Parts: sequence; C-alpha cells; structure tokens
Amino acid sequence: MTMRIAVVGAGALGLYYGAMLQKAGNDVHFLLRRDFDAITAKGLMIYSVNGDFHLSKVKGYRTASEVGEVDLVLIGLKTFANHKYGELIAPLLGENTAILTLQNGLGNEEALAALFGGDRILGGVAFLCSNRGVPGVVHHLGEGRIILGEYERKGTARADEITAMFVAAGVECKAVADLKRARWEKLVWNIPFNGLCALMMKPVDELLSLPATRKLIMDMMGEVIAGGNAQGLMKDMAGSLAEKMVIFSENLGAYKPSMMIDRIEGRPLELEAIFGVPLVAAAARNVSMPRVEELHALLQLVERK
Amino acid sequence: MTMRIAVVGAGALGLYYGAMLQKAGNDVHFLLRRDFDAITAKGLMIYSVNGDFHLSKVKGYRTASEVGEVDLVLIGLKTFANHKYGELIAPLLGENTAILTLQNGLGNEEALAALFGGDRILGGVAFLCSNRGVPGVVHHLGEGRIILGEYERKGTARADEITAMFVAAGVECKAVADLKRARWEKLVWNIPFNGLCALMMKPVDELLSLPATRKLIMDMMGEVIAGGNAQGLMKDMAGSLAEKMVIFSENLGAYKPSMMIDRIEGRPLELEAIFGVPLVAAAARNVSMPRVEELHALLQLVERK
Repeated sequence: MTMRIAVVGAGALGLYYGAMLQKAGNDVHFLLRRDFDAITAKGLMIYSVNGDFHLSKVKGYRTASEVGEVDLVLIGLKTFANHKYGELIAPLLGENTAILTLQNGLGNEEALAALFGGDRILGGVAFLCSNRGVPGVVHHLGEGRIILGEYERKGTARADEITAMFVAAGVECKAVADLKRARWEKLVWNIPFNGLCALMMKPVDELLSLPATRKLIMDMMGEVIAGGNAQGLMKDMAGSLAEKMVIFSENLGAYKPSMMIDRIEGRPLELEAIFGVPLVAAAARNVSMPRVEELHALLQLVERK
Repeated sequence: MTMRIAVVGAGALGLYYGAMLQKAGNDVHFLLRRDFDAITAKGLMIYSVNGDFHLSKVKGYRTASEVGEVDLVLIGLKTFANHKYGELIAPLLGENTAILTLQNGLGNEEALAALFGGDRILGGVAFLCSNRGVPGVVHHLGEGRIILGEYERKGTARADEITAMFVAAGVECKAVADLKRARWEKLVWNIPFNGLCALMMKPVDELLSLPATRKLIMDMMGEVIAGGNAQGLMKDMAGSLAEKMVIFSENLGAYKPSMMIDRIEGRPLELEAIFGVPLVAAAARNVSMPRVEELHALLQLVERK
C-alpha cells in the first residue's frame, strides 16, 4: 500500500526520506523554501552510500494549502521552527491524517498534540548521517534507520503500517511500544556529541581521542541515562549503553553532528529540544544532570553571540 | 627594616610588587627574560591606579647565580614553568632565605618544599589586576592585596615581618594562620572565572549577564567550597561566599582574568595548579566536583590546539 505524504521541513532529513518514499511509489509532496526553484526545475538528486539516484519529477510547494489533505505528514523541521507547526501542518490534515515527527529531542510530540490532538501523533528517532549540498542535492553519508512509535494511541496497527511503508522503501525501520525510551536513548548520544562538538567546534573523533573529554562524554551519558530512567520507561536503559555508544562513535571518524553544522552555517541551535526540555524533565523527577546543565549554559552563551 | 629580595618570574605581578618594594627602600633584584634589555637600559615604569611612578635604576639579571644569596625570594612565575624552580631558585638560597610564592592555584608550596625544605616556604594569595605593556612597562589596574602565611613553620614572626615589609611599601597585606584556606578561597573565584573566561573567550561581565552562566558560576563555586571544606581547614568557608564573590565580580566589568590573557597571548594555561591539583585533592576526600571537572576537560581540549 502506498500513501499520500507531505514532507514538512525539507532539509537533508526530510528530502532524503521523502525521496526514498517517492522512489518506492508513494505520492510525496514537499513543502520547500531554499530548494524550491532547483527542485521544481531539475528534480532531486540523492548521492547515497547505498547508491545514487535522481528523481526528475518532484512535487514542490511553497505553502501547505496548495498540498491539501494527506495520509501522513512527515516532519523534518529544525525544532527552533516549531512555532510554525500551525501554519505548516493544519492545511494538510483530514480526519485520519497521521503526523510523524522525526525531529530531534523532546517536546515535539507534546507540542503537536496540543495543537492537533494526541491521537494523530507518532514520533520517530532517525539515525541518519546526511547533509544538503547545493539546492536540489542531498548527500546521504551513512545510516538511515528509524525507530518509531505512537505518542498516545494504544495498539500498533498504524505504526506497523507506516513502518512497513518505510521498509518497502528500503529504509530500515522498527516500531516500538515505548517511544519515550527511544527518544531518551537518542539523547544519550545527542546531548554530549551534538553539544560538545558545537561548543568546541571539533568533530567526534577529536573529542574521543583526549582521555579527559572521552571521560566527560561517558559521565554525561551516565547523567542522561539516569535522567531518562527516572521518566517511567517500560524498561530501564542499561548503564552499559554509554560505553557501547562511545565505542560505536569511534567509527564515525571526523563526523560533525547536526548542531555543529548548524553553528557553522549560522543557524540557531536546537537547544530547547535537546537540552532545555530534558533538563526540566529530569529535574521534575529529582535527577540532577550537572554536566548537561553546564553544557547547556555554555551553549546559551554561544547562542547569544 | 628592609630586605635583600630576588623576584623570580618577573611578569606583571612580579614586576609590580618588586617595584613597590624597591620604591620603599628594599634591595630588589629581578630575574628577567623578555624585559631585560628595556629595564636595564631605561628602568621600570608603573602606570598605577594609585599613582604612576618610574624606577630609573633597576637591577636586572639573566641568571640567578649573578644575584647570589638573598633574604627573600618572591616567586611570580606562571605555574607551567615550575619545572624551572631548581635552576632559578637554588643559587639564591642562604641558610635563612625565605621563599614566598605568590603563584596561582595549588601545589606550588608542596613542589618548593620538596626541593628546598618546607621550613623556608611561605605562600601568598595575590588579588591584583595588572598586566604588562611594552617591555619595561606594567599597568596596575586595581586591587593589589596579599594574604600570606607559613607553609609548615609554626609561629608568625617571619610572616609578620614580611607582611610589615609589604605594608611599609604601600601594599595591603595580611598574615593568616591558615594558608590552605586562603588558597581555596582564591580558587572559589579562579576556577569559574579564569576557566570559563578562557574557554569562552569572554570577559567577566558577559558571563555574569546571562542567567544560565551566572547560575553555573554560583554552582561551580559551591563545588569548590565543598571541595575546600573537605581539606580540614581551620574554619570552613561559608556557602554564602559564592554569592558574595559574584556580587563583587559585577564591579569588575569587562575584566579578562589571567588565564584568558594567557590564551589570547598564546601562552600555556595554568590548568594543573588551578584545576588538576584541586580536583585530585577534592577526590581524595571523596568530594566530586563535576562542573569543575567538565571545565577542566574542555580546557585540556583547548590546550591541545
């Protein structure tokens, strides 16, 4: 079964997954800004570790009302643009439209639920290394796996259907019962690496090669694991997750996480979703994350310019 | 009574105090490197908030053996040069020569005691805002107070005598029984402000004007107070010291602490004395200073270039 899909927030992530879904036969509609002219004129080029491909006909739009109702809204917005949810998403919604946010950090499902009702909402964690090239071009550097789950709705029928659609499109995808746990697991990586790489303007391998910062990363991961485990997850994250992630990250080489790229390119940083909301959630359960809080404070200073 | 004094480490601090002592009639001998030519040719100029003055005849030397024995060795070296203690100080020592280190952080008295015996050693904490101008010129921007004490020797006769000499030279000076406490009190300021200003390359007022970094500074000061109080001080530091110091620091405006100046001018940072040794001392008493440890790790990354 194929779906009528709107991609909202067509950065590297939105363009990549949208292109994969279109290639597999889905009817995909892209809300575009920067890439509108290039993509509507010349299509979309994906240079991928799994094989390059070009979509010559791509449906691009400047406003959501031109798209109309869809089966699925796929959100790849940077979280600092979440105040645009209403304008970008409302015109896309029919009675049964599902909304899947693949954005970073915490708080996105909650904000969407407040606007559009919790029953529509699914969340997903994307493990994707990609970036945009010139307009109309996306570079897919590695990974691509999605873990998704319902935000509020009981039962797995819808999540399973969306998962099957991704899998049919060649995207590794798994539905899980505990979306909150998936979000926190991602934060265990995102908080130290996005934050420290953006603060120090150094890629992953430089942070791991100095014993003091390697230990800091492990300690900070420990704080996030404790903070997440206090949220009433179905199953606690294991303390060994920190070491596993560090060892995995050694294979990433000079990888620049998205927040570092955001800083390099002069965009705002996703501090609220990746730091602010998790810190509040941990504090609400009486878990202190002093190292995370320090990093958040220093990044706020960076943001002030 | 005046003394025969050698100043070892004639940066802004050594030159300023040495000049004040010479102006008051002491026989002061400066071990010089950068400023040797300028000072031996044209003397030493002090531009001071308390009144400018010029010393036309200044005794400058390139090696300690040219100086010979003195009553007092005044050490103003940057702590990353402490491996030169032997070469710079041994030739200055007679039977009763005292050594007063005015250097930053922890570990200096211990290193001097290991080389020259603990009975000779005094330590002092200098609250001085000064920097070097062109060779032969020192700018004294504010403060200047010294708190000093014996490292090992019982009794206060010698510390009182040195204190009286400073006071006679117009330097506010106080002898205290608990040198260790004075050192840790200074660290309560030095650790957050030297460290954070050097890391972020922003002066004191910018760090204090953002609520998140202001809170970080207070929290970090709390860690240092706890770490110091675990060392068996004669009297604990009060928790309110953090707030007092923050309020005092608001008067410093765009002040750049010495570690920030060191980074700007491409010198090594005094990480071991200001961070490394205090962290080990706190850990030895089972006090964790996670925020301090994080800052130390990030500064080590800066140091690696």
